[in-house]
Amino acid sequence: MAHPLAILSSAETNLARDIVRAAQPKDVLLDFREIYLQEPPKSQLVEFLALEHAGRLSPTTPRPPRLALCQYDVIGPDRIPEYQESIIDLVARTQVKHTVVGKQHHAALTLSEFDVLVVIEPWPYGGLDHTDENRRFFQGLCFAQDKRSGNADSNFYSFPLPIIPVMDAHTQQIIRVDRPATGGKGDGLLEQTFKRDIIGHCKPSEYVPELLPKGTRKDLKPLNVVQPEGPSFHVTNDSLVEWQKWRFRVGFNPREGATIHDVWYDGRSVLHRLAISEMTVPYADPRPPFHRKQAFDFGDGGGGNMANNLSLGCDCLGVIKYFDAVITQADGTAKKLPNAICLHEQDNGIAWKHSNWRTGRAVVTRNRELVVQFIITLANYEYIFAYKFNQSGDITVEARATGILNVVNIDAGKISDYGNVVSGGVLAQNHQHIFCVRIDPAIDGQNNSVLVEESHPVPMNAVTNPNGNFYQIKKQTVERASWVDAAPEYNRTIKMINSSKINPISGNPIGYKFIPLATQKLLADPESVQARRAQFAQHHVWVTKYQDNELYAGGRYTLQSQYEVDGVADAVRRGDPVANTDVVVWNSFGITHNPRVEDWPVMPVETFQLMIRPADFFVENPSIDVPSNKNVSSRLADKECCRKSHI
Amino acid sequence: MAHPLAILSSAETNLARDIVRAAQPKDVLLDFREIYLQEPPKSQLVEFLALEHAGRLSPTTPRPPRLALCQYDVIGPDRIPEYQESIIDLVARTQVKHTVVGKQHHAALTLSEFDVLVVIEPWPYGGLDHTDENRRFFQGLCFAQDKRSGNADSNFYSFPLPIIPVMDAHTQQIIRVDRPATGGKGDGLLEQTFKRDIIGHCKPSEYVPELLPKGTRKDLKPLNVVQPEGPSFHVTNDSLVEWQKWRFRVGFNPREGATIHDVWYDGRSVLHRLAISEMTVPYADPRPPFHRKQAFDFGDGGGGNMANNLSLGCDCLGVIKYFDAVITQADGTAKKLPNAICLHEQDNGIAWKHSNWRTGRAVVTRNRELVVQFIITLANYEYIFAYKFNQSGDITVEARATGILNVVNIDAGKISDYGNVVSGGVLAQNHQHIFCVRIDPAIDGQNNSVLVEESHPVPMNAVTNPNGNFYQIKKQTVERASWVDAAPEYNRTIKMINSSKINPISGNPIGYKFIPLATQKLLADPESVQARRAQFAQHHVWVTKYQDNELYAGGRYTLQSQYEVDGVADAVRRGDPVANTDVVVWNSFGITHNPRVEDWPVMPVETFQLMIRPADFFVENPSIDVPSNKNVSSRLADKECCRKSHI
Repeated sequence: MAHPLAILSSAETNLARDIVRAAQPKDVLLDFREIYLQEPPKSQLVEFLALEHAGRLSPTTPRPPRLALCQYDVIGPDRIPEYQESIIDLVARTQVKHTVVGKQHHAALTLSEFDVLVVIEPWPYGGLDHTDENRRFFQGLCFAQDKRSGNADSNFYSFPLPIIPVMDAHTQQIIRVDRPATGGKGDGLLEQTFKRDIIGHCKPSEYVPELLPKGTRKDLKPLNVVQPEGPSFHVTNDSLVEWQKWRFRVGFNPREGATIHDVWYDGRSVLHRLAISEMTVPYADPRPPFHRKQAFDFGDGGGGNMANNLSLGCDCLGVIKYFDAVITQADGTAKKLPNAICLHEQDNGIAWKHSNWRTGRAVVTRNRELVVQFIITLANYEYIFAYKFNQSGDITVEARATGILNVVNIDAGKISDYGNVVSGGVLAQNHQHIFCVRIDPAIDGQNNSVLVEESHPVPMNAVTNPNGNFYQIKKQTVERASWVDAAPEYNRTIKMINSSKINPISGNPIGYKFIPLATQKLLADPESVQARRAQFAQHHVWVTKYQDNELYAGGRYTLQSQYEVDGVADAVRRGDPVANTDVVVWNSFGITHNPRVEDWPVMPVETFQLMIRPADFFVENPSIDVPSNKNVSSRLADKECCRKSHI
Repeated sequence: MAHPLAILSSAETNLARDIVRAAQPKDVLLDFREIYLQEPPKSQLVEFLALEHAGRLSPTTPRPPRLALCQYDVIGPDRIPEYQESIIDLVARTQVKHTVVGKQHHAALTLSEFDVLVVIEPWPYGGLDHTDENRRFFQGLCFAQDKRSGNADSNFYSFPLPIIPVMDAHTQQIIRVDRPATGGKGDGLLEQTFKRDIIGHCKPSEYVPELLPKGTRKDLKPLNVVQPEGPSFHVTNDSLVEWQKWRFRVGFNPREGATIHDVWYDGRSVLHRLAISEMTVPYADPRPPFHRKQAFDFGDGGGGNMANNLSLGCDCLGVIKYFDAVITQADGTAKKLPNAICLHEQDNGIAWKHSNWRTGRAVVTRNRELVVQFIITLANYEYIFAYKFNQSGDITVEARATGILNVVNIDAGKISDYGNVVSGGVLAQNHQHIFCVRIDPAIDGQNNSVLVEESHPVPMNAVTNPNGNFYQIKKQTVERASWVDAAPEYNRTIKMINSSKINPISGNPIGYKFIPLATQKLLADPESVQARRAQFAQHHVWVTKYQDNELYAGGRYTLQSQYEVDGVADAVRRGDPVANTDVVVWNSFGITHNPRVEDWPVMPVETFQLMIRPADFFVENPSIDVPSNKNVSSRLADKECCRKSHI
């Protein structure tokens, strides 16, 4: 029997599809978008997990329902598609819930919608202008492909065309062609300045090795990661991972990509669930229609839908375990997405070291990490997401941005206030990437609190600070759902604690902490459509009370949204009490990306890390028992790498 | 002939010592502290380097003088030591400068001063109180060693004793024994609360593997880094390193440890010099004499003096090139410090990736890094410093803090506002670590400027921002020496540019940039001794005009300083014009370290990174030509790591 958190199998997916199909009238067409696991209600899941951890599961143990969430368009005789959702109980083989989603929302996009466009790079339409009808639009960012190389992977992004057709996805009709401006400093927002030969000043900017004018460099020697005894992890056939006292499950869904569940260290619960909840990429060029360039890569496209098929020896080194995923085809049948997630170990330098200067004895351990990684491609951009665990009890959520900048045409010889010219005729517009990670803590149990801890200076005074060196730690429990911004000037730290479990050494409640990165928040005017639909990007930390199905920081439906609906800001607005209860913590961070020429044609990774670390959760450094063995395969550099001085 | 930046050889060191000895009266004793390279005046060095890079050096090329800086105490018949410095010209074999350093300054400490203390952990005395005579003091932090194990590496830090003898280092007399308080919350600053059996409530906290009660974990399998064709770098016998279009020299001195010089990428100059300039570790316990716990680990102890002898397979993996250093013994003769610096390559995940979703073709390159690493031990603490270079033109300065917390005794059962109890009777006091990195840029030449670039919101308005999505980039050149704080709310970025060299693609001046980390600044009251002697820790970025020998952010003499003398704040106070000239940029960053129980007995690394990246320095991504070859040694995880579900 599948674990309640296991992703749906192909058979389960197809079963769900058949039940949905049977429940609909025979004369309608169904255009399926997603079928994936509807995670069980938390109360039932937690009950099951408690039995599992106690070793008390048996074939007769009651189980949470095994549910499939099915999202699809129903196309009736009138040809106007209607977006609907069903929840299917896979054991009872019944439809337990059926919803006609309001027409103000749009399902996320699927790649199959783009096959009809040919030389056009389809993009979400962004937030609707108030003059727009609410139809399902895509905007086509158009590029010319240099056919001279005869190579289908020649980089067409270096030939941007200043036309943006707008398509109605349901009727597949082009309803309008926008003509963005191509001017530079001093030209008006709407001024049409371009000459006849709009890409004559553009140049090839290749990245596939066979098209590089000088080829690839020749002096890089191989560096291999070799694990002669195999990896240190174990994985069950239902995605339970055990490694170095850690134990957790890996999930996957089309929206969030890889998700992490039921995380324990050395027999103690740490987190209930961890996922990348959303990200938004708003562009700052004020010239219409560029204000509509704002992607919600998880809500619009899907972190799972857009996941790469990962490749051994390219996306990771060493001994790799891959997880396949299941995605949904337009007819609702399952299709395997092979190698959607990889699991591997890596060395991250020294974990801890001490040398006793009296005896000369050094003890040094390596920081071994276990990495759960997935990579998504959204048209031009790539994101590499990793959940990293180490032996010291740390959990790091890492995002790397790479891929190709989204660019537009600029007249020859001009520069712009709205971005940087990165190649002839190619303007890379200023933009932001803001991610949101959802952390559902379970610090030795589900009832947790959030503590904001700060360090403050104290003026010199005879009573408490006679020499002026004292500083004071201030702690405040978050009582009601609310947001908290990063404040590095106070070393503001977010602690997720269990106030009923006291660390026997320090006397403090046990906890895990993170220091929210003080990255720049959303810059768009708060009244702009960009800002209204991305509330989550306007504060760093959000604290809410757990509710089933409340997973998406930017709301469930982001495609063409004008407001953030049922996002984290709405959850906060409920004002629930959040102390000593089932609390959820959301962390937004990102980058203001004013492109460099070096980001072209493919940008070197920009890396962001959210580090979640134990804070008086353990009674000592949990990695103190890591062996300090010398690695016997390391070698001294041979004489051949050593040269005589040139001078 | 040695390169002007090569560290002094043993022969040169001994020659300098002999010349100093001969220049002094016969009836005095000399107690040597350091002998190391006095780097040439920059004007002469730059002239030499220009010839070197042009391939125009010959045996008759005029060379900068080869100078040794010698620091020593002169002990005359009156037995009162006098601290003196000499500069020796090693080619001319003459003393070219001789200085009697004012008695208000103290030379850095040397380990040989501590041999006379036996069970006492010697520490710098901190800033002098105004009631103190200005003698050369050390404070002894005392611990009991648990002899029952019979193991000399049993961790004595878990048995702190509440007595602090103060020693005069010159007379080697104990002049006073301080009795710090051991109380907790509610006890007075000076209250003597402890009972007879002061360490009865302390417990062993071992870290050497043979003393761990449960031994080490057994399930960690080896992970080897194997480079079958050897490393990709070349090193000359005078420490010129060439790797992947990078070219730089590695220096070493007792004060700063490893230093990086004359850094070029693909035939273009990037930096003239890069080093860790200083760090300070002030403690926040207000109870006297703990206000004197403030180390300047580079000025007091020396990042080179305290460098570890690195070990193959422990401190780094793969194929390693070690650099030996030369240190000075008390009689002035040279002693080799083997393996003081290591050089190695490492894989740091994906460098860049793009998948063409139309063709399915993915191109992915690995981020190979070259690491120059050294590790220092200062009594209980360890720091791991690394200069990392990658193929995308990035230079990262990394500091990792590890080792053992400095702790004091606390009465049984008490907790404290001044720190965290991390083991029975062991209070780990709150403290900060603030580092300062000195960057001497040479962006295509020595004349550079510093630009502060920020991103600001713009209110929605019909003319420039009709849809509210626009934000504005503001740039300001630093005209006069000054400080600048981190400001993540504006995405404040420091760009080091060459305003006379324009990037042909973007039209911007070429440059390198970094975003200063907004870590908490020094918390001590500005009027405290702690703050007065650590001005550099009170702002994030300092911009100064280059002056020969101005290398130390906290001033040349930090031991027992009461003020920062000739530190970076003084350099700023000169108010020099700094635009389009030889400019130096200093970056301070760090951590407010309120200890966790998990930091005991040896703390997992806390990592800090200063990332210096090209900003329109190149005309495209400089790593675009890195091969995207599949690593053929990577393997699929075998069936043996896969288990059946438990449920």
